Amino acid sequence: MSVTAAQGFSAAGIAAGIKENGNPDLALVVNNGPRRAAAGVFTSNRVKAAPVLWSEQVLKGGEVSAVVLNSGGANACTGPQGFQDTHATAEKAAEVLQGHSAGEIAVASTGLIGILLPMDKLLPGIEKAAAALSEHGGEKAAIAIKTTDTVHKTAVAGGEGWTVGGMAKGAGMLAPGLATMLVVLTTDADIDAAGLDAALRDATRTTFDRVDSDGCMSTNDTVLLLASGASGIAPEQKEFAEAVRTVCDDLARQLIGDAEGASKDIRIEVVNAATEDDAVEVGRSIARNNLLKCAIHGEDPNWGRVLSAIGTTKAAFEPDALNVAINDVWVCRGGSVGEDRDLVDMRFREVRITADLAAGTESAVIWANDLTADYVHENSAYSS
Amino acid sequence: MSVTAAQGFSAAGIAAGIKENGNPDLALVVNNGPRRAAAGVFTSNRVKAAPVLWSEQVLKGGEVSAVVLNSGGANACTGPQGFQDTHATAEKAAEVLQGHSAGEIAVASTGLIGILLPMDKLLPGIEKAAAALSEHGGEKAAIAIKTTDTVHKTAVAGGEGWTVGGMAKGAGMLAPGLATMLVVLTTDADIDAAGLDAALRDATRTTFDRVDSDGCMSTNDTVLLLASGASGIAPEQKEFAEAVRTVCDDLARQLIGDAEGASKDIRIEVVNAATEDDAVEVGRSIARNNLLKCAIHGEDPNWGRVLSAIGTTKAAFEPDALNVAINDVWVCRGGSVGEDRDLVDMRFREVRITADLAAGTESAVIWANDLTADYVHENSAYSS
Repeated sequence: MSVTAAQGFSAAGIAAGIKENGNPDLALVVNNGPRRAAAGVFTSNRVKAAPVLWSEQVLKGGEVSAVVLNSGGANACTGPQGFQDTHATAEKAAEVLQGHSAGEIAVASTGLIGILLPMDKLLPGIEKAAAALSEHGGEKAAIAIKTTDTVHKTAVAGGEGWTVGGMAKGAGMLAPGLATMLVVLTTDADIDAAGLDAALRDATRTTFDRVDSDGCMSTNDTVLLLASGASGIAPEQKEFAEAVRTVCDDLARQLIGDAEGASKDIRIEVVNAATEDDAVEVGRSIARNNLLKCAIHGEDPNWGRVLSAIGTTKAAFEPDALNVAINDVWVCRGGSVGEDRDLVDMRFREVRITADLAAGTESAVIWANDLTADYVHENSAYSS
Repeated sequence: MSVTAAQGFSAAGIAAGIKENGNPDLALVVNNGPRRAAAGVFTSNRVKAAPVLWSEQVLKGGEVSAVVLNSGGANACTGPQGFQDTHATAEKAAEVLQGHSAGEIAVASTGLIGILLPMDKLLPGIEKAAAALSEHGGEKAAIAIKTTDTVHKTAVAGGEGWTVGGMAKGAGMLAPGLATMLVVLTTDADIDAAGLDAALRDATRTTFDRVDSDGCMSTNDTVLLLASGASGIAPEQKEFAEAVRTVCDDLARQLIGDAEGASKDIRIEVVNAATEDDAVEVGRSIARNNLLKCAIHGEDPNWGRVLSAIGTTKAAFEPDALNVAINDVWVCRGGSVGEDRDLVDMRFREVRITADLAAGTESAVIWANDLTADYVHENSAYSS
């Protein structure tokens, strides 16, 4: 599983001492070729962490030979020194791995914003990680990028003779424009950078970009897809893209399932929208409504809060034509009282909200979480 | 104080039995003239409660002789029956008060969405309220419109020989496009409907519209301003508008101070913005960031979350020119680490965040609250 499920990759996860508790905090993923094609998608937050600014430049070349990832510090809002630290990280990896330039090394960081990384620990950690590289190191790499994640997250898919594997971290600051997360996907399929880019953008648009746990967009979101070509097989673009989407969807669901303090995973499906954009706008508005999120936590099928959220959007709809189902019970019909709300069974973790805009034929699914006292507790003490 | 501080008004607040616990739930405010000019501002939520749809029509005439307000039910998302119920409420008030038509009676409701009002209790309640009308009834009216409010909210201002008084209710679903609230303002100044409208729109734009307790916009927000002209004094428009703004600002601050579950009032001032719209957009984005709201609750001066919120906006700024102060300590300078965060004292209820965009000369203030476990508890059990 993880990033070493595909041939041509080695990985490691070690404790460099960035985290004061001694937990693993540094991961290294190396593409051993023969191909080193890559694509990346990054946060749309305009305040971007140093490693995002660096890796965006690296990806412009369409080749990545290795990725260094650290938890324990986001290296965001750290000024020129932060950018120099990322550069030094890439230089160190290039030196240790030999035969590569820093310009082919992507860097990703996660953790608290506004703190400089302890480079005296991080740089020796890269040597330690390089020494631990293994074709079975994918799990350890996935463990080393955890922050408040309670479990590490991996997924795999593929076709005849080729594989797409991946790992992800993310538990808070999960919102569109990419959830707060680091994701590395690998494949041994023989695909060029353009093919990777098309598959990755298509996949993230309907998976990670439609996860909205808490409405907060990160400064560090990074999703990378690296191809080694080691299988020697060049699948059809469509088949390959579908495998990438499957892995992204699997990881996105794991992110929601492990979101900080959450007790419910909320699947919001907006149907019969005039446009897909309308469906996404309405879905996000519902996903971000704190009062609704509290109601779901209380297992209260409070459809009035769904309607009040829909009403704040610019989507095409008539208020008296809206229908809303919660766990398949149509509690709101024609913008007014529908079936008996007592019929809604909300005991299980997954809650399904269907919002019918009665305005067209387009649809979209957004995944969200409930809002809980545990979320408040976890995030009111995060940096102290 | 309240709506009877101005001459020419009588009011009452009684228990009609709409609330099952027997608390006051029906208020009546009557303009005894000689003038009956009025202006209103309503929620911009596209899903509007029946009383909002009704009162918007009433206000088009520029005259309001009375306002019926009920708590215990929002009469929102209640279909044609809900609208008929509002109409019947106005008809009943017109009948009981005599000499007025239903078309001059504004109606406002607050409480749970999606429940029909118990008209068998509400209509007799109007008779009871009419019998209790008094020139000293303003406090009782303010008490009768409370929902989860812990205190009733009134304010007064004015000039030489004339007065502006007001009452407000609102504790949750507090967000722009008008906070979830009902507000009735009265004045004995001799001002026509156009003058009232100008003063009210100007005042709400920078007071109620800049309160964002929990990002959730109501279906029922209503702010009415009624003028009796009973003082016989016609103040300058500017002086009158300033008094209206003072009362609105006072009530808006009371709303934030009594927001559900909140332990902090957060004053977010965005300075040096390119435009006022930019300042408001950035202020709202900060106000709605759940992670920051949790951090403030934990008395954690987590400026990284302020920057990540600013980064999601379209406002003009350069990330490396941003400065942020929390309680006057500039913890972020030039988009990076500033003064020592340990210097920030956050023990008091009011927390001041200053975001300097370094992009112009415009500014705006948004008021918000922290996110607490109490908010979750209160709102996960509201309708059950």
